[in-house]
Amino acid sequence: MSTTSPDQAVISEADLRALGVQAYEDLGLTRRDAEDACRIMVLADLFGISTHGMSRFESYGERLVIKGINARPAIAVERVAPALVKVDGDNGVGPLVGMRSLQAAMDVARECGVGIALARGSNHFGPISPYAYIAAQAGFASMIASSATTSIAPWGGSDARLGNNPLGFGVPNPEGRPFLLDMAMSVVARAKIRDALKRGESIPGTWATDKQGLPTTNPKQALDGFLQPMGGHKGYGLALLVDLLSGLLSGAAYLNHIKSWMHEADQPQNLGHFFLLIDTKILGPQRWLAERMTDFASILHASPPADPARPVIVPGEIELNKMEHQRKHGISLDAATLQVLRQYASRSPAVRP
Amino acid sequence: MSTTSPDQAVISEADLRALGVQAYEDLGLTRRDAEDACRIMVLADLFGISTHGMSRFESYGERLVIKGINARPAIAVERVAPALVKVDGDNGVGPLVGMRSLQAAMDVARECGVGIALARGSNHFGPISPYAYIAAQAGFASMIASSATTSIAPWGGSDARLGNNPLGFGVPNPEGRPFLLDMAMSVVARAKIRDALKRGESIPGTWATDKQGLPTTNPKQALDGFLQPMGGHKGYGLALLVDLLSGLLSGAAYLNHIKSWMHEADQPQNLGHFFLLIDTKILGPQRWLAERMTDFASILHASPPADPARPVIVPGEIELNKMEHQRKHGISLDAATLQVLRQYASRSPAVRP
Repeated sequence: MSTTSPDQAVISEADLRALGVQAYEDLGLTRRDAEDACRIMVLADLFGISTHGMSRFESYGERLVIKGINARPAIAVERVAPALVKVDGDNGVGPLVGMRSLQAAMDVARECGVGIALARGSNHFGPISPYAYIAAQAGFASMIASSATTSIAPWGGSDARLGNNPLGFGVPNPEGRPFLLDMAMSVVARAKIRDALKRGESIPGTWATDKQGLPTTNPKQALDGFLQPMGGHKGYGLALLVDLLSGLLSGAAYLNHIKSWMHEADQPQNLGHFFLLIDTKILGPQRWLAERMTDFASILHASPPADPARPVIVPGEIELNKMEHQRKHGISLDAATLQVLRQYASRSPAVRP
Repeated sequence: MSTTSPDQAVISEADLRALGVQAYEDLGLTRRDAEDACRIMVLADLFGISTHGMSRFESYGERLVIKGINARPAIAVERVAPALVKVDGDNGVGPLVGMRSLQAAMDVARECGVGIALARGSNHFGPISPYAYIAAQAGFASMIASSATTSIAPWGGSDARLGNNPLGFGVPNPEGRPFLLDMAMSVVARAKIRDALKRGESIPGTWATDKQGLPTTNPKQALDGFLQPMGGHKGYGLALLVDLLSGLLSGAAYLNHIKSWMHEADQPQNLGHFFLLIDTKILGPQRWLAERMTDFASILHASPPADPARPVIVPGEIELNKMEHQRKHGISLDAATLQVLRQYASRSPAVRP
């Protein structure tokens, strides 16, 4: 492990995983559960999605300590139909409930060609691309989604009633890179608006509304207001759809029945997730799929770029390039994140609450 | 039937259906196939989506006459796994292949809780909300998508390599209105840019690019260029995902392997469709689902509107309101569309090519 700047640290994948597993164990998880949760979180950091990787130990850890999240959940998988399972996460750590749901959906998809897991009783489960990547490496196309704390107003409304619900997809290429798409429903993250405020710049009128629900170019008013969904009413519709699939149909909370992990950290959120898996090995020979997927990417790459410095990319390439680089050269991480991990990992079991 | 203006006509649902079925029969379809295809097209007009309803007889009819579309397809449904069917549309009319694929997916979903149909060898299949509505009325949540003729440049690219691929969803409410979402991937339809040109107005820079792939506010340059996907790179990713699910995995054509129905009307397009059905009756009692769906809509409706004249709506309400109105008062249709239908319907079998 080496340090590149006072704020950044570099750590190997193996060391980060070991540290994460130890931190989770010291927070009360079993070793197996800690390993499953860390699988998603380490992949997030490998992909460069550091806002959704190990940095989340700050909130996950705090909620485990105050028992807002259950360290020893009895996760229950119920197969309600040949291709359909319901998962009760028992308020476990999100990436753990997510991994178990993914595994359950893959299990039934192997039998039925298609499998869906609907999870309830969960928490923030990290980014979607790690799940989609694991599925793709096992030959499954996937659609994965989660409900989230409310932060967006209904289209035309003026108070937060839906989450910036993530939605993602993966499609495997047996001889190349999978297609990976992972997106939130807002045009931009709040961080971009905060950056504009710091620089004293105005923002495009499509990013956010003020607290009355009216579009604004003023970053201060935007931060007091609501993020706008991408594509206007289309993104509003998609965010609702994610909440319907992940929250409403799964038996989880939905819309503003969802409690905030920030303001009610000691309460179960009852978030829901949706996992759809399709076994591509049933659709044709692996060679057939590989040829089509490779041709698909080639067609896109061959479009002459509008800006020669920025060639066309296929979704997932940024994350997969980052992973290749960081597997060789180590994972770049906020020093503060490592410090949080080390604090949890070094706690003596005797001082645990 | 009454006429409201020289350009508009009003016709009852039953009369429109009968006329459509007769037109299709005179174009060579069997009565059963004609009825299945008209089920989707009449619903499209009932919903007020007249651009994707019976007005399509203009292109469908022309292509049937020149044998670009097969009037007597042998549609083959192959169940490749318990929950997964592949459909070969044999170059039949799109709404017919769509209806058969929907039925096949519902059949396996009844058994497995989940069902997917992947269709190839198809053509433009109309809008998505009619399929999602039929599914919702039978108790199924759905995700439905189709590939389409290429009209959008890859994000950062400068030539048309992907379609404005429609994607839609439905979730039933056993005691109320279903959630119905139906969207194309562009920010706006080309028609809106043509309108701006006519009025001599500029357009927002997010709608389209010029032919070099650079954003433009000039409607003329935009019409020579490409539609922009909604949400920028996010819409680009979603359009690709739809093509992967509908086109690539189904064995259909994809990206610019798809032939244009305008420029190569006599050639099979080999479009693909994706139908995912989830049997909500397995998830809980109908009363439970109805309560949650009704509560979901109430929460959204209760958000104070930013503009008091435009209350918050739930996706599907515009279409369902329109259907209620038109079932009572007749369907409003372009007079030209009715004329096309009557021409086909009145052709003597003897003059058919």
